[in-house]
Amino acid sequence: MISDRKLEHLLICKNYDVEFKNKTTGFEDIELIHNALPEIDKNDIDLSTSVFGKKLDSPLFITAITGGHPSSKEINEQLAIVAEENNIALGVGSQRAACEHPELEDTYSVVRDNAPDCLLIGNIGAPQLNLANKAVEILDADILAIHLNPLQESIQPEGDLDARGYLDLISKITDAVDIPVMAKETGCGISGDTARQLADAGVSFIDIEGAGGTSWAAVETYRAEDRYYGELFWDWGIPTAISTAEVVNNVDIPVISSGGIRSGLEAAKAIALGADSVGMALPFLKKSISHEELTQFIHKFNDSLRIAMFLVGANNIEELKQSKLVV
Amino acid sequence: MISDRKLEHLLICKNYDVEFKNKTTGFEDIELIHNALPEIDKNDIDLSTSVFGKKLDSPLFITAITGGHPSSKEINEQLAIVAEENNIALGVGSQRAACEHPELEDTYSVVRDNAPDCLLIGNIGAPQLNLANKAVEILDADILAIHLNPLQESIQPEGDLDARGYLDLISKITDAVDIPVMAKETGCGISGDTARQLADAGVSFIDIEGAGGTSWAAVETYRAEDRYYGELFWDWGIPTAISTAEVVNNVDIPVISSGGIRSGLEAAKAIALGADSVGMALPFLKKSISHEELTQFIHKFNDSLRIAMFLVGANNIEELKQSKLVV
Amino acid sequence: MISDRKLEHLLICKNYDVEFKNKTTGFEDIELIHNALPEIDKNDIDLSTSVFGKKLDSPLFITAITGGHPSSKEINEQLAIVAEENNIALGVGSQRAACEHPELEDTYSVVRDNAPDCLLIGNIGAPQLNLANKAVEILDADILAIHLNPLQESIQPEGDLDARGYLDLISKITDAVDIPVMAKETGCGISGDTARQLADAGVSFIDIEGAGGTSWAAVETYRAEDRYYGELFWDWGIPTAISTAEVVNNVDIPVISSGGIRSGLEAAKAIALGADSVGMALPFLKKSISHEELTQFIHKFNDSLRIAMFLVGANNIEELKQSKLVV
Amino acid sequence: MISDRKLEHLLICKNYDVEFKNKTTGFEDIELIHNALPEIDKNDIDLSTSVFGKKLDSPLFITAITGGHPSSKEINEQLAIVAEENNIALGVGSQRAACEHPELEDTYSVVRDNAPDCLLIGNIGAPQLNLANKAVEILDADILAIHLNPLQESIQPEGDLDARGYLDLISKITDAVDIPVMAKETGCGISGDTARQLADAGVSFIDIEGAGGTSWAAVETYRAEDRYYGELFWDWGIPTAISTAEVVNNVDIPVISSGGIRSGLEAAKAIALGADSVGMALPFLKKSISHEELTQFIHKFNDSLRIAMFLVGANNIEELKQSKLVV
Ligand SMILES: Cc1cc2nc3c(=O)[nH]c(=O)nc-3n(C[C@H](O)[C@H](O)[C@H](O)COP(=O)(O)O)c2cc1C
Ligand SMILES: Cc1cc2nc3c(=O)[nH]c(=O)nc-3n(C[C@H](O)[C@H](O)[C@H](O)COP(=O)(O)O)c2cc1C
Ligand SMILES: Cc1cc2nc3c(=O)[nH]c(=O)nc-3n(C[C@H](O)[C@H](O)[C@H](O)COP(=O)(O)O)c2cc1C
Ligand SMILES: Cc1cc2nc3c(=O)[nH]c(=O)nc-3n(C[C@H](O)[C@H](O)[C@H](O)COP(=O)(O)O)c2cc1C
Repeated sequence: MISDRKLEHLLICKNYDVEFKNKTTGFEDIELIHNALPEIDKNDIDLSTSVFGKKLDSPLFITAITGGHPSSKEINEQLAIVAEENNIALGVGSQRAACEHPELEDTYSVVRDNAPDCLLIGNIGAPQLNLANKAVEILDADILAIHLNPLQESIQPEGDLDARGYLDLISKITDAVDIPVMAKETGCGISGDTARQLADAGVSFIDIEGAGGTSWAAVETYRAEDRYYGELFWDWGIPTAISTAEVVNNVDIPVISSGGIRSGLEAAKAIALGADSVGMALPFLKKSISHEELTQFIHKFNDSLRIAMFLVGANNIEELKQSKLVV
Repeated sequence: MISDRKLEHLLICKNYDVEFKNKTTGFEDIELIHNALPEIDKNDIDLSTSVFGKKLDSPLFITAITGGHPSSKEINEQLAIVAEENNIALGVGSQRAACEHPELEDTYSVVRDNAPDCLLIGNIGAPQLNLANKAVEILDADILAIHLNPLQESIQPEGDLDARGYLDLISKITDAVDIPVMAKETGCGISGDTARQLADAGVSFIDIEGAGGTSWAAVETYRAEDRYYGELFWDWGIPTAISTAEVVNNVDIPVISSGGIRSGLEAAKAIALGADSVGMALPFLKKSISHEELTQFIHKFNDSLRIAMFLVGANNIEELKQSKLVV
Repeated sequence: MISDRKLEHLLICKNYDVEFKNKTTGFEDIELIHNALPEIDKNDIDLSTSVFGKKLDSPLFITAITGGHPSSKEINEQLAIVAEENNIALGVGSQRAACEHPELEDTYSVVRDNAPDCLLIGNIGAPQLNLANKAVEILDADILAIHLNPLQESIQPEGDLDARGYLDLISKITDAVDIPVMAKETGCGISGDTARQLADAGVSFIDIEGAGGTSWAAVETYRAEDRYYGELFWDWGIPTAISTAEVVNNVDIPVISSGGIRSGLEAAKAIALGADSVGMALPFLKKSISHEELTQFIHKFNDSLRIAMFLVGANNIEELKQSKLVV
Repeated sequence: MISDRKLEHLLICKNYDVEFKNKTTGFEDIELIHNALPEIDKNDIDLSTSVFGKKLDSPLFITAITGGHPSSKEINEQLAIVAEENNIALGVGSQRAACEHPELEDTYSVVRDNAPDCLLIGNIGAPQLNLANKAVEILDADILAIHLNPLQESIQPEGDLDARGYLDLISKITDAVDIPVMAKETGCGISGDTARQLADAGVSFIDIEGAGGTSWAAVETYRAEDRYYGELFWDWGIPTAISTAEVVNNVDIPVISSGGIRSGLEAAKAIALGADSVGMALPFLKKSISHEELTQFIHKFNDSLRIAMFLVGANNIEELKQSKLVV
């Protein structure tokens, strides 16, 4: 059952080491240039950004984590509360389960209940064209994300291995729903070529989710009887910094840099590389044990981003995007 | 006696550390590019390839390992059985012993007996021109390999150190036999220049056998009274990834990438570099303890190759060859 | 109170590890070229240099360390004595405290009392325009340094985070005082762009104080309740060698290379990169426990610089500046 | 007294770690290209080379080690015997002591007594112009080496630090003696510029003695009261591979590559870089405990050089010089 698998994923991600082993995001090789004379007031720095007409207080997305299992309701509720309080964006996990099992709907709808004004992102797979509108409706979503995860499907015993026609399905989903559609990977990144295909198919937002953070080959390794394949492909994927640069240089739609982002300092580098905002999943799952921890985490993210912006002399996200980098 | 030496080689390779120490194949620095939208069905991926008119179910060669000693008969039998069952290619070790000592013939002919339909590769040294047809006949070979191993000859006490006229001998062997002739190294690789000389001499297949896997200087070190030379040259040779790129860029005949290849993921990189197929020796020797181990190993090779192909969106070996790489 | 903070800084710098962790000055990647035929007499090497008309016996600045707390009086006295004896330049720490609390004046004036002929450098922040002349007067300074330290301000709880108008304030300070004005960082370095802005604002001397030595994020980490920000930005900044090259290539005013310089060998590299002299703070603080230690340290600095100059065949600082380097 | 210092040098070099710590010769980054088809007979490889009309059986110099102390007589005798037996070249240590103290003459003349047919190299410093002919006479030298060692002079308490006029003195020495004059460093290497100056001064042979082997800063560190300077400059110098390339590209006279060469494999790389022969000091000193050890060492050097030549297909030193390298 999907819903059991989802519980396993949560438990594995919370308790085991699921991050890349020998590959990093690449951000450690990228340096922002210190400005000894920033000529700005740090207290005036504006972290806000606008996404499809909705204003966020900081360029931060809690990317798709969960839903579809009773235990995920509580997590989603916690995330919704802090997202609302801090006015950041929040995505839910794959909604297929809820669309097919109405009794699970509230594990997703709890999000909108607790985050009435937030930018919320629904989540389906490309084959779930027929569930697209249902998914949007359950969440009252502002954006619908289509997850791409061929590596996870390859390692997972129950994986869906027929990826034919996905581009066409994605195009149909963009036609079917009234809200913007986002394509997102889950930790292997998106190449420049793929980004162009997605934009051509009508996708209006890309969340790159590159290599260096949570590895879904790793997660599935813990679930597999034979660990061989998961260990072999544990570090497969395009490092987040490279994927970010590739995508922003190939398409003109907004881009989220994500996969292994862990602080506002890395976020600043990602945005200076050309991303519009950043996303994180695993850290939010780990902090979801308490409202206090989540609040602190967002606060530290925002403040470390603000320090980095102060030190390069960027008053706002747009100026940060124009900052120079050294590789 | 040759046949004792062959037993020693088997025992050393099975029990001691005979791989390169500080030099690698170079494949770890080469990345295939993740395709988040493969648009293919993993279950339909076709691993088959055609070699001189014979179809293999996967682009995998068990390269020359043994023969010529009673104990190698069993190993060759095991290898022949799995090669036949999985329809992959199989090479035997140097046949000089059998050609000169008819009582050893069955340590080779056992291969054809158990692999009636397989692509089999005979094996002689360049100076054994006069044994070429006999070697082909004993094995009922489809291809005759000529091994090149000047490093091993240099370190081995009994080594043959006169390499004059080899090119001419190779050319004569290609004339003497009716089947395609392959040139293969044994772990030091083949340069672009040497590849061109070989192609000009009429060789129709090159198995590069580069540095990074089994080191024959290492093997002979364990046999030598004085370990000095073997240790000094332990890591000599052209890394497999470099030798592969060099050879495919210099000749138009089919190329096997080998020497330190250990999984389908490395195989995918080798093929994307331009090789037609890959080869392995040491892993097969180590797994030859049981039919089950060998079967599993081939199965995992094929499946990890299939995953890599799925993740770059290659339906078949030809498409994999066209895949892009990042160095 | 400022003055307590100053004592804390002294104690932390003396007792804890406050240097960069994973970032270095970059000098270890730069090599002077050995000259087997120097054609000079090492005993005749002239280390002297002239700074705004005053001759120093060696191109060494004790950069801003302290003042403003009773315990700093003794340190400043010690530093003044060796600076005078060795005729090198000496800077004091921020004079804001003394300008505002006359009872602390003698923690600075003790310097001129003990170093009547030395090149002394006063120290204020850009916002202390109104204290500029007072600072000069208390010290009877030859040069007035304006420190730039946005990182420290960001990490320090009491930090001044409004950096607007600094350039204008700096320009006004250069007008207000009769002596040359220097701009100095405190361990994050100065970029080429910032250097040009400073020169345009009328600054006549730049002390780059780059990354690789004392990290002020580190120092403040030990004082902070929450170590998060200090640890995240511990290694922020432009490595000293890079900042030095950037600044000398962008402006025509004299440049001090500093931040992590620890010997005459690194000093020789910095000068060959184009700096006019070098500076150090932390080593002098650590050696300030005794006159003997300080004297030895300067002696070793001078002599190791002399050896490096002998080995590249440079008779004096001007010739050293023309020496070739390999990166 | 010079002669005591010489004993100390011998004891330190024999018993302590005197080689470079963090800098290498650079040969490990240079690869000869494996030739799977050498087309030569290893047994026919000719290692001989001709130096100013005298034939050596292999391109190997025992570079300047000792003389001038009673205990060095025995070492020089041992070295002379193996040099004669193997027909390689042999240099003696600085002859200044013997020229000034006739009772020490036999510590040098013992060499010619035991090596009547060898290529012998005398050794003086540039300031010993007046001793040049005496030095040649004592040894009955074929070549006179002038050692350049400004680093050692800088670290050594008794060092001669006036290097003015050396080039002129060298030029005068080349005029004064009837035999070819060589310039040699002692472990810091010679730059292209210095090589050109030396050639212009009439020197007809350069022994580069680069960084990566014996460090004379290290040796003198063990003798110094204050280890500071020796430790700071321990790794100073131009790596042997780089110095070799620099010198052969800048002058047309024969070049010895040396400083950290330890085997025939490194020798092969040095010669393929353009050197005419190679030199070693420390290994010979260490093996000088017995005739057997010395003989074995030369034998292994020759044979490892021969293997490298076989594997690149070089019949002789001239062909080896033309071999390709990969960096
Ligand atoms: C427990 C867990 C569950 C996830 N479930 C989904 C999912 O259902 N749909 C999806 O698109 N991504 C899912 N992701 C992937 C994340 O959105 C993200 O792409 C990935 O974890 C990399 O980011 P990180 O390194 O910040 O964790 C999940 C991640 C975690 C940790
Ligand atoms: C035990 C053993 C025996 C071998 N004997 C031969 C041989 O007789 N002829 C030959 O051409 N190669 C021989 N090889 C070399 C292999 O074919 C192959 O070139 C080499 O081992 C590198 O591949 P690997 O890293 O996958 O082992 C032998 C290898 C092994 C391990
Ligand atoms: C204890 C201490 C106090 C310092 N106080 C000041 C100061 O008041 N004003 C200033 O411009 N720099 C100050 N600095 C910074 C130094 O002048 C210098 O820029 C920095 O320490 C980097 O150099 P280093 O690596 O040689 O220590 C201080 C440094 C230390 C160690
Ligand atoms: C004990 C010892 C004494 C040496 N004495 C001299 C000398 O008197 N004159 C000289 O030119 N070089 C002298 N050298 C330097 C060597 O000739 C050589 O340049 C240096 O040791 C680097 O080579 P290596 O790494 O093979 O030892 C001496 C070396 C050693 C180990």
